[in-house]
Amino acid sequence: MAVTASPAPFTTEDFARRMACAAEQAENAGLTGILVAPGPDLLYLAGYAPVAITERLTMLVLQTGRDPAMILPSLERPDAEHAASAGTIALTEWSDGSDPYAAAAPLLDPAGSYAISDSAWALQLLGLQEALPGTRYVSMTSALPMLRAVKDDDELERLSAAGAAADATFQEILKVRFAGRKETEVAADLASLLMDHGHSQVDFTVVGSGPNGANPHHEAGDRTIQDGDMIVLDFGGLKDGYGSDTSRTIHVGEPTDEEREVHDIVRGAQQAGFEAVRPGVACQAIDRAARRVIADAGYGGQFIHRTGHGIGLTTHEPPYMVEGETHALEPGMCFSIEPGIYLSGRFGVRIEDIVTVTRDGGRRLNHTAREMQIVA
Amino acid sequence: MAVTASPAPFTTEDFARRMACAAEQAENAGLTGILVAPGPDLLYLAGYAPVAITERLTMLVLQTGRDPAMILPSLERPDAEHAASAGTIALTEWSDGSDPYAAAAPLLDPAGSYAISDSAWALQLLGLQEALPGTRYVSMTSALPMLRAVKDDDELERLSAAGAAADATFQEILKVRFAGRKETEVAADLASLLMDHGHSQVDFTVVGSGPNGANPHHEAGDRTIQDGDMIVLDFGGLKDGYGSDTSRTIHVGEPTDEEREVHDIVRGAQQAGFEAVRPGVACQAIDRAARRVIADAGYGGQFIHRTGHGIGLTTHEPPYMVEGETHALEPGMCFSIEPGIYLSGRFGVRIEDIVTVTRDGGRRLNHTAREMQIVA
Repeated sequence: MAVTASPAPFTTEDFARRMACAAEQAENAGLTGILVAPGPDLLYLAGYAPVAITERLTMLVLQTGRDPAMILPSLERPDAEHAASAGTIALTEWSDGSDPYAAAAPLLDPAGSYAISDSAWALQLLGLQEALPGTRYVSMTSALPMLRAVKDDDELERLSAAGAAADATFQEILKVRFAGRKETEVAADLASLLMDHGHSQVDFTVVGSGPNGANPHHEAGDRTIQDGDMIVLDFGGLKDGYGSDTSRTIHVGEPTDEEREVHDIVRGAQQAGFEAVRPGVACQAIDRAARRVIADAGYGGQFIHRTGHGIGLTTHEPPYMVEGETHALEPGMCFSIEPGIYLSGRFGVRIEDIVTVTRDGGRRLNHTAREMQIVA
Repeated sequence: MAVTASPAPFTTEDFARRMACAAEQAENAGLTGILVAPGPDLLYLAGYAPVAITERLTMLVLQTGRDPAMILPSLERPDAEHAASAGTIALTEWSDGSDPYAAAAPLLDPAGSYAISDSAWALQLLGLQEALPGTRYVSMTSALPMLRAVKDDDELERLSAAGAAADATFQEILKVRFAGRKETEVAADLASLLMDHGHSQVDFTVVGSGPNGANPHHEAGDRTIQDGDMIVLDFGGLKDGYGSDTSRTIHVGEPTDEEREVHDIVRGAQQAGFEAVRPGVACQAIDRAARRVIADAGYGGQFIHRTGHGIGLTTHEPPYMVEGETHALEPGMCFSIEPGIYLSGRFGVRIEDIVTVTRDGGRRLNHTAREMQIVA
């Protein structure tokens, strides 16, 4: 697969199909329709991203039996008219100084129930609730959590290419000098490599050396990496609009027996999570499979986050591999499997691949060695 | 003023004062308290910015008679404990797989009324509404629009420095070649210059040449700039955490009489807006003063946006200089005054300075020439 060529853009027909499917899903869920805010939902359904996400109301309304309709600020209309879906969406403008919620009201059923994008601003939800007191709202994640979760072939191609770019980044970072350099310097190398390999945006470059690796949300700091450090690397971003996210834990010089043992446990947990993937299995089963390996080894209290999250137009979206998530896996879903063990004040280990669900199991989108690599 | 030295960071006492003041403002507005989401509100009140703004609930609760309290994901606790305000806020954790809204409920009055950050996720507002059906919510902008609007001296120093950096950027961009280069190339120059002058983040670099200048939300495109083009430049970002935002409209080679006339009208409107600034005057009066000049000149229908917006930790916040905004200006408020005229398919003109309210008038934070500059 050529990872350098950009894929063909999604078409008006792609967006029309997605919008119709979303409206139908809403109806099947007992809802009147869905309200789509700027961000990944709007990009997915309409191929439209306003130049900035602000307090100004932009909202796409989808419901069966009606054409797609969008309220937007009048001065953003020229941009919206360039979206691939533009011709299929009825645009309603509002101007600065007027009430956007009054302008939006005719687009909604005054007694309707709507799923609204998770990241819609509270300001805007409150505005709609006040303008239309008979309407009811639920979050997209609770009503239609899997709206964007099943990827089609064109999306999978993009996610595979993003994963390949992240893998190439990992292969090259192994060659740089670690000992004596600051975490932030290695993080900058990771960011450059991701961009060199076709990413348009870097979302995170975690370099958690020694004790910093024991904080799973540590990004990269001023600490100078030392010989003998375990280092958690976790990096990703967007390539051609779709996300990458991979973690490997490497070691500067020879590891101790304990470091090897903990790394092996996490690798086993990651493998167990991967082997649990198949259609029809609940998301939480992936978490349980990975967690059991770590708990059985006596480190259950040191695995302090969920096992994974979905990935697509964002690097962080449903489905979540977490206890309590009973939704069944379906072919085309893509998510991370990233168990970890965090030994406070000492070191951490995390190993992460993106995995997609196939007809009869799972397929990794990251392919670099999961065995602990030794660097200088 | 040294624009290169970083200012002293805000202290625990600064944040304690801001949090107490916010709780008191909420009480005065008849509310139980305020709910502060990650983003500029949380940064302002607690000096805390989670590593990423995600679906995971983080929320600061402020109300008089109670200590500040914050719900946050357990794995982000180490980060939160590094915030300057950490010692003064009671932290409540929730872990992946548990219900964050159940965990947050004890921090709120079950029959309370709260102002919530505009940009809090709808997902989270719906979660709170469901967990605490007796609570009521209003948006921060409607209840306490001026929470962050009045800047103290330390904030004004930062905004002045950001303005000086934007001014230096404008002076230097005048020396580059425009004709024959793409808008995106000039935009990249603007971004580099802003960073060279101490910005940590570039938020926008509008280069609207010829007909593209007539779309006020055009950023920069593939159009090659030509001799005879009018060019709207509008750029800004963050320096030491505070925003810059300035616009100038320049011309490649000699302008026509009509171009000069339109530019003069906009400059007159910007001056009229500035001269209307003084404590006690309604925000909408600034809009009216600028708009009247343009309307009197016969271009009222071509000034298609509000006159200005506040600036501080973001480049876009209350107070808004717009018809219907009757809140009175107070010393320390900072906002843009940026009237424009947009002649569809031909050219646009916009001139923008950041202005702060003083005891008896206004003071500009941008000082480059507003007269039309001629470039090559």
